[in-house]
This record gives sequence, structure tokens and C-alpha cells, in this order.
Amino acid sequence: MPLRLDSAQADFELRFSQLLAGKREASQDVNDTVAGIIADVRARGDLAVAELTNRFDKAGVTPTTLTFSPDEIAAAAAQVPANVRAALQTAHDRIKAHHEKQKPQDSVYTDDLGVTLGSRWTPVDAVGIYVPGGLASYPSSVLMNAVPAHVAGVKRIAMVVPTPNGEINPTVLAAAQIAGITEIYRIGGAQAVAALAYGTDSIARVDKVTGPGNAYVATAKRQVFGQVGIDMIAGPSEVLVIADSSANPAWVAADLIAQAEHGAGAQSILVTTDPRLADAVEREVDRQLSLLPKQALARDGWDEFGAIITVASLDEATELANRIASEHVEIATDDPQALVSKIRHAGAIFLGHHTPEAIGDYVGGSNHVLPTARSARFASGLGVLDFMKRTSLLGCTPSALAALAEPAVTIAGVEDLDGHGRSISIRLNR
Amino acid sequence: MPLRLDSAQADFELRFSQLLAGKREASQDVNDTVAGIIADVRARGDLAVAELTNRFDKAGVTPTTLTFSPDEIAAAAAQVPANVRAALQTAHDRIKAHHEKQKPQDSVYTDDLGVTLGSRWTPVDAVGIYVPGGLASYPSSVLMNAVPAHVAGVKRIAMVVPTPNGEINPTVLAAAQIAGITEIYRIGGAQAVAALAYGTDSIARVDKVTGPGNAYVATAKRQVFGQVGIDMIAGPSEVLVIADSSANPAWVAADLIAQAEHGAGAQSILVTTDPRLADAVEREVDRQLSLLPKQALARDGWDEFGAIITVASLDEATELANRIASEHVEIATDDPQALVSKIRHAGAIFLGHHTPEAIGDYVGGSNHVLPTARSARFASGLGVLDFMKRTSLLGCTPSALAALAEPAVTIAGVEDLDGHGRSISIRLNR
Repeated sequence: MPLRLDSAQADFELRFSQLLAGKREASQDVNDTVAGIIADVRARGDLAVAELTNRFDKAGVTPTTLTFSPDEIAAAAAQVPANVRAALQTAHDRIKAHHEKQKPQDSVYTDDLGVTLGSRWTPVDAVGIYVPGGLASYPSSVLMNAVPAHVAGVKRIAMVVPTPNGEINPTVLAAAQIAGITEIYRIGGAQAVAALAYGTDSIARVDKVTGPGNAYVATAKRQVFGQVGIDMIAGPSEVLVIADSSANPAWVAADLIAQAEHGAGAQSILVTTDPRLADAVEREVDRQLSLLPKQALARDGWDEFGAIITVASLDEATELANRIASEHVEIATDDPQALVSKIRHAGAIFLGHHTPEAIGDYVGGSNHVLPTARSARFASGLGVLDFMKRTSLLGCTPSALAALAEPAVTIAGVEDLDGHGRSISIRLNR
Repeated sequence: MPLRLDSAQADFELRFSQLLAGKREASQDVNDTVAGIIADVRARGDLAVAELTNRFDKAGVTPTTLTFSPDEIAAAAAQVPANVRAALQTAHDRIKAHHEKQKPQDSVYTDDLGVTLGSRWTPVDAVGIYVPGGLASYPSSVLMNAVPAHVAGVKRIAMVVPTPNGEINPTVLAAAQIAGITEIYRIGGAQAVAALAYGTDSIARVDKVTGPGNAYVATAKRQVFGQVGIDMIAGPSEVLVIADSSANPAWVAADLIAQAEHGAGAQSILVTTDPRLADAVEREVDRQLSLLPKQALARDGWDEFGAIITVASLDEATELANRIASEHVEIATDDPQALVSKIRHAGAIFLGHHTPEAIGDYVGGSNHVLPTARSARFASGLGVLDFMKRTSLLGCTPSALAALAEPAVTIAGVEDLDGHGRSISIRLNR
């Protein structure tokens, strides 16, 4: 049974706060283990990577077989049915078209003192993409990480994917092929992150590591941050559906189930102004779950983390949405535009009855790597800017420098940095 | 004596690599200490913050005196001379004017299938700014953190600044006043970061923490990342000057000294095509250092971390610049525009003979919080985007959903997420 709340309840604030604060992941303290793995990879390179990969993944690799050969990639990709390849190609093309529009503009101008000021964007040289193996091995995630990097102009993309018991999902390699990735290593875990960040004989170091992973991967990313850039630390997936009486309970239920079936702490929340819809959705979830081939994971997730909240108004709904700051927000009303500007914190917003969140996971064109665990308060989904960096440009004419010298030298003085002041005053012709 | 290298030397590659790999900071493993402090603040709130502040800063605070009162801020700011206030106001206004130009544009469009796709930017609600106390207590850093946050539209800015032995730099409070910051706490260290990230009775939690600090602060930021957003992990400051025979050796020397006087591992490197300039600059640094009131720090830094590299061409110089990926790059040539596009990795580039780096520290208008320790390979200076986040918008019409259904359901199928596929197919009228 999901949690049922109503904003008119006397203890609503307390219970809603508990829902927000609820932990959905077992926090594993793997700091020391990961630090040891990183140190080992830095010291022994490929040998450590191979040993650790065989220990954790039983992958049967040696330092010379860490890399997928072009033939292996082609052979695996060839196993993938044509309709799947076509679907991945459609997804690729739509993701590419949308992300092209995210490319930033350089800006350089001269102000009225004659100071040239500018912002110039350049791509990261080399990026490492972590792709999980096993259960959560998603070809769509390959596209969602690789395409923005390509659009940004990244020259080298190195992909790592663990192969538990030596097995690889051929669809993941097909997606890599469609995304133009040719450098793929059969490694995973903290050792893969360490190899990407510091480099080994066979794996050149990259400048940034992106992609989801388990607690070891997340901790390794946190520890190598600074040596390389990283994207966010991904948590369990989540959806918040805001619905009024115009919503179709069966459709809403299907969306709640789609999120819950990720398992691993995934959370589905419905906030609705219509108590009858709330009841109907709860019944529909139960009915549809019983028809789902693998219903156990979704049912457990819905029972443990699901919630249905009834509220007095759509304004109340958007207020709660801002406090939840969900990865995905669906607006299941006839006029979604009326609500969208009121939702300040969300990874992605899905507009109207005909936009199930799952369409954004695959072929909508927007990115499905989005901030979780309330981090939409401060973080954005993955995009082209994550694979670029901005350089400031500053240029003074002699007269501009003269005009700015006094305040600059004054501040240098109070900051006790005389050398800073002198580097300015030495240039003034007196 | 600084390191002298020439790119024609047989062992240049080895020695240059050693220069790049050289550590300039003692790495302190304070992970466990910081984890304990964060846990203590989460458990005991203000009481822990006050106890830790008194232990580390001897600040004599209680849980009820953590906050600077408006009178205390006004009284401290009133001690600051008028010319310093005016200089800080000039800096503020120029930083504000430049950062206004960084505000991102929202973008929403409909593609040829009828899919609405958009990117919408919104400010972070609440930001915490860490300002170091004691030696490196810089009013300019208050402005460089606060102004982009204000320009982004951040509603609440909470500043923390430790007061060792109960003392505060009044200029720091004056800068806060000019930047419009009214919420200031006399706390620092990991306990301040923990209080900002998790909140206490007297300090409401924020969504993002920015600003430089010592190893404890940096480690605390790393550990709370995810609970809140953080900016970069700042390392020692650094400058790379690229100069040809047109450069003035005295001016170049002054810029190298300005960087070295930060101490704490700060690094100054000159790369020049002109061996005579190299010699002249080395002599000039020595001469000017002897005239600097507090020369010891700068001389030690220059001797330990400084380097002068002679190269055969400006192309070679820009290649080295890209490998160094310096926080600051000065182009001391008559035609800086000819080189700027070849420099791919730099925090900020200073154009021409009349643009000493120090002008950018204070009043140029660009931000002085920039990526250090080669992180310009993947990171940008602080800016307005750091205080905003992007929400994706996606909207389908019934016909757009129908057009995209088949590839989406196909990918859901290979990812073993039947519920995803059903949330799409249930909406198709069949």
C-alpha cells in the first residue's frame, strides 16, 4: 500500500516532511575500500585493473584484453535486431537534434572604458563514460551520455562497461556504435573510474567522467573529483505526477508503475486535487501491476516508497512539487502551461496527458540523465554544457588600465597583496 | 631560483612532465575528522557548531550569538575608509555589469512531429558563501561569490566567516554590505559547511555552498556534495605568462611576483620565445622582490614553484599552455588575438601588455574564482550559471506520441522495462 496523505490533515506537515526526508538507499560506507582501489590502480596500472576486474566481475581479462576490439564490437552489434537498431538510431537522431540547440554562444564586447570582456566556450578534450553492466545495462544511457559530448565537440570518448562473467549486452555495444564510440573497455567499478581518471598504460586518462553506477562507482567519482570533472551522483529515480480531474487514472497509474519498476528505491508520487482520481489511480495501479510480467519489483517499490497526496488546489500541488524537487514532474491537466511557470525545482517537466515520462527516457530528445534526490534544487540534467568549459577573456587598453588602477590598487592594499598593486602601478606612465 | 627549461633540451619532455605533475599542496587526509564534525553538527545542531567554533577559532560564541547583528555589520563597515568603500563599490558595479551578460536564455520550440522541447533556467533558492577568516580574508572574494548569485536571482545568501580570537576583518563585512548580504554567521571550518548543508535551529539549510577554504572546508564540501551543490575545490593560485620579445621584462616580472605572493603553493610560469627576455625577467623578479615589503612569501614561492621556459615559437608556447591548463594565462605580445584561439584550456586569458592579471582579481568585471590545478581542462570560473539550474520541458500531442511510440516501446522492451512501454502504449487509441 502506498502512503496516503491529505494536505488538510492536522499532521500533514509532519508526515510530508517525513516523506521528504525518507532514505531510499542503503548508505554504504565504502570510502576506504574505494580509496584502496584507486591507490592500487595508480600504483600498478593495468595489472591492478585486470586483477580487480577478475575478482569483482569474474570477467577473465588480462592487461592486454581490457579493450573491446573493433571486430568484437561489430560482431555484438550485428546480433541486434534491425528494429532495435532503427529505434536506437531514431533516439540518437532526436537527442542530437535537441542537444544541438544547447550549444552556447561566445560573447565578447568592449565596455565604455575600453575594457574587452568575453566568455568563450571550448569542449573538454576527453571524456570517460561509465555504463553499468548486468541488471541496469541501458543502451539508452549510452546515447544520453555520448550524444551531448559529441555535440559539445569532445574529440575522444572512452566508454567502460563491466562484463560480469564475461557477458556483455550486445545492445549496449550497438548503441555505442550508433553514437560513434570506438574506444570501449570491459571494466567497471571503482577500478574503471580510477583508470579513466589517472590513466594506465592501455587506457589514456580522460578529463571528465560521467555516467551512473553503484555505491562503489559513485564513491570513486566523488574521490577523483578535482583530478577529473564528474557529473552528478545519481540516486534512485523518481516521478511526481500532478493531476486534476481531467486526468485518466489508467494513464497516471501506468506512469507511476513505470517509475516504480526501476526498483532500488525508485519513488512514484501522485499529487491530485481530485480525491476520486486518487482512489481510481490506486485501484488502477493494483490492477495494472497484476498484469505486468515482472511485477514484484514494481509492486515492492510502490508499496514501500509510493505516495498519493490529495490537495485543495493546484497551487498547493505546485508548492509541494517545489519542496519535493523531483527528477521528473508530469503535469496531467488540460492546461499544463498554467502550472509550468510555478514549478521552480524539477529535473524535467512533462506537459499534459499525452506525455508519459517514458517518452523522455528514450526518444523525446531531451536528456534522461537528471538530478535525483531533491538535487533539482541546485542541479540540472546532463547537457552539452557539461562537456564544455568557459574561459574568461579580459583586455585593457592603456587608458582603461589607468582608469581602473586606483580602485584595484586600493583593494590590493587592504588585502595586503602589495605585489598585486605594483603589477598595476608599474604599467602607469608617470 | 626558479626552474629553467628550454624546449630544445633532450630531456625537456621528462622535465616538463615533472613540472606538471609536481604537487604544490601537502595533501592532508582529514576525511574521518570532517565526517565526525558533520555527524556532530547534524546530531546536535547549534550546540555542536558553537562548541567546534570555540575549539578551533577561540571565538567565544554561544548558540545564540552565531549571527552578526545588523548593528555589528554596520559598525564594522563604518570603520572602513571611504576610498576603500568606493573601490569596492566600483568593483561590485563592474562585476555586476559583466555577469548580467551571462544570464542564460530560455528556449522552447516545437519540432516537426509536434513535440514541444524546452530548456528553462531558474535560480537556486538559497546559497551559502564561505569566506575564509584570518590571513586570506579577501573582501574581493565576497563580491565574486555574491554578485553572480544575486544576478542569477538567488533570493537568500547566507555568508559564513570564521572570527579567529573573535576578530573580524571589517572590510569583509563592508564588502558584504555592498553586495547586499544581511545574513552573516561568525563560523567557519567543516562545521560551517555542515550547518549550511543540513541546517540548524538558527541557520536554515541552503541549496548550494560556494567559496574557498582550507583542507577541512574543501573536504567538507566534497562530503556534503549531493546534499547540496558545491562549486569547485580550489587549489593554489597560478599564472602562466606567454611573452615574446615585445614584452616589458619589468611588467612580466611584476605579474609573476603578484601570483607568487599568494604563497601556499602558488605558481608563476613564464613561457617565452625570447631567451634574452627570459634572462631579463629573472633578474627583474629578483630586483623587484627585494623592494617588496613582505618579500619572503613571494620569494619562497618563486624559488620553489616558479619556472621560466624558453621555446622556439609561439605555437609551441600555446601547446604548453594547453597542457598546463592554467588558472590565469597572460598573453604578453603585441597581437594577443593571434594566440587566443589556440589556447583551449585556461580559466581566464588576459590580453596584451596592459592587462595584468591583478586587474581581473578586482575590478575588470570578470570573476576571479577560477579553476586551478589543471582543472581548466574540464571546469569553468564561477558565474551566473553556477547559481541557476536548467529544467527540461517535453510535451507531446496525441499524434506526436503516436509517431514516437514504436521506437520508444522497442527500446523499453530491450531494456526489460515493460512498464515503461505500457505507459506509452496505453495512451494509443487502438
